[in-house]
Amino acid sequence: MASTNKSRVLKVEPLNHTDAKWATLVKITYSDPEGVTRDWEASERLTRPKGSDIDGVGVVAILQDPSKPDQSPRILLQKQWRPPVNATVIEVPAGLIDPKESAEVCAVRELKEETGYVGEVVGEGFGVSPIMFNDPGFCNTNLRMIHVTVDLSLPENQNPEPSLEENEFIETFSVPLKDLWDECRKFEAEGYAIDARVGTLAEGVECAKRWKLH
Amino acid sequence: MASTNKSRVLKVEPLNHTDAKWATLVKITYSDPEGVTRDWEASERLTRPKGSDIDGVGVVAILQDPSKPDQSPRILLQKQWRPPVNATVIEVPAGLIDPKESAEVCAVRELKEETGYVGEVVGEGFGVSPIMFNDPGFCNTNLRMIHVTVDLSLPENQNPEPSLEENEFIETFSVPLKDLWDECRKFEAEGYAIDARVGTLAEGVECAKRWKLH
Repeated sequence: MASTNKSRVLKVEPLNHTDAKWATLVKITYSDPEGVTRDWEASERLTRPKGSDIDGVGVVAILQDPSKPDQSPRILLQKQWRPPVNATVIEVPAGLIDPKESAEVCAVRELKEETGYVGEVVGEGFGVSPIMFNDPGFCNTNLRMIHVTVDLSLPENQNPEPSLEENEFIETFSVPLKDLWDECRKFEAEGYAIDARVGTLAEGVECAKRWKLH
Repeated sequence: MASTNKSRVLKVEPLNHTDAKWATLVKITYSDPEGVTRDWEASERLTRPKGSDIDGVGVVAILQDPSKPDQSPRILLQKQWRPPVNATVIEVPAGLIDPKESAEVCAVRELKEETGYVGEVVGEGFGVSPIMFNDPGFCNTNLRMIHVTVDLSLPENQNPEPSLEENEFIETFSVPLKDLWDECRKFEAEGYAIDARVGTLAEGVECAKRWKLH
């Protein structure tokens, strides 16, 4: 396992939904297209704010220095150990949405808190993704991905200082976006787990390169 | 909501883990990097075969006709109503892995069952993705994405006939891979939900186009 991983699982126990604060298990009774009544089991977060249509956001933050236009854009990534998978995961910055917070505001806030960088949401219809469901056959958890650029020439981005909670241990780094697929394969070989947002973004970039989708 | 949606949720009830067959809820006790003992709540599938490191696969199936090299490659997508999100979801073909089945074999089998198409796993280190975790702060569910090409000129791909289970209702279609981001936005506007694999793949393609990552 990766050298950053000093965390470890001590015990895993079944949890009754009446004792849970953050997650729950539900039985869904539904009517199928032919009118047959069927059951489905699913899990849900208990943290989605009332009135919000998402649990949180992920941030695709692209680092750029306008004075160095020849540099290939880099994507900001994180290493964070996650109890549910008992591994250090390669992720994009992300977080749960606060009550009445917009997805864009949440993304810029989480980026600053987790990495110290000040970013700007990109325009031209590419700043805010549709709502994406993480595993819709299993749970209702979802997010919007927010696309942000970080201008490395700005004074506020010279010495980025994260403001982490006392139970958060996050290491920030970056890789060239065009090499993300190869980087994911390397990280897996080193014992890291790959978050689906990172791996699937890498697949999309690689598809575009291989199929010459300009 | 989309016209294909004849399914509907009748009832959602809390489910005790002792009554669940497919999913469960767990309390994880872990030691953080500073040696502090903490708790985390998570959910898990109960269906992962013993000895398997994944729950299932997703399939990026690219339709091609070698006699029409100028045609932009199209990606195979599905519409499937999902009880956990109470919506018809735009997804890639996917499925749970059988005991002792390889990810590649599972992908070709699920593609054939769900869409009728016969595909071939691509080579050059791009056929099989790293293991990707769907929502690693919430659950341990994961998959590998398998990249497949479907040769539309083959006799077996002339009249693809799915073999669906009696509780499966899946509609298959395709869109140009290069337009996937715009298609996702259109589908959301029409009331469909977007699976994270489809949406994030679209983001990757769009990033590559916008940042000119060749």
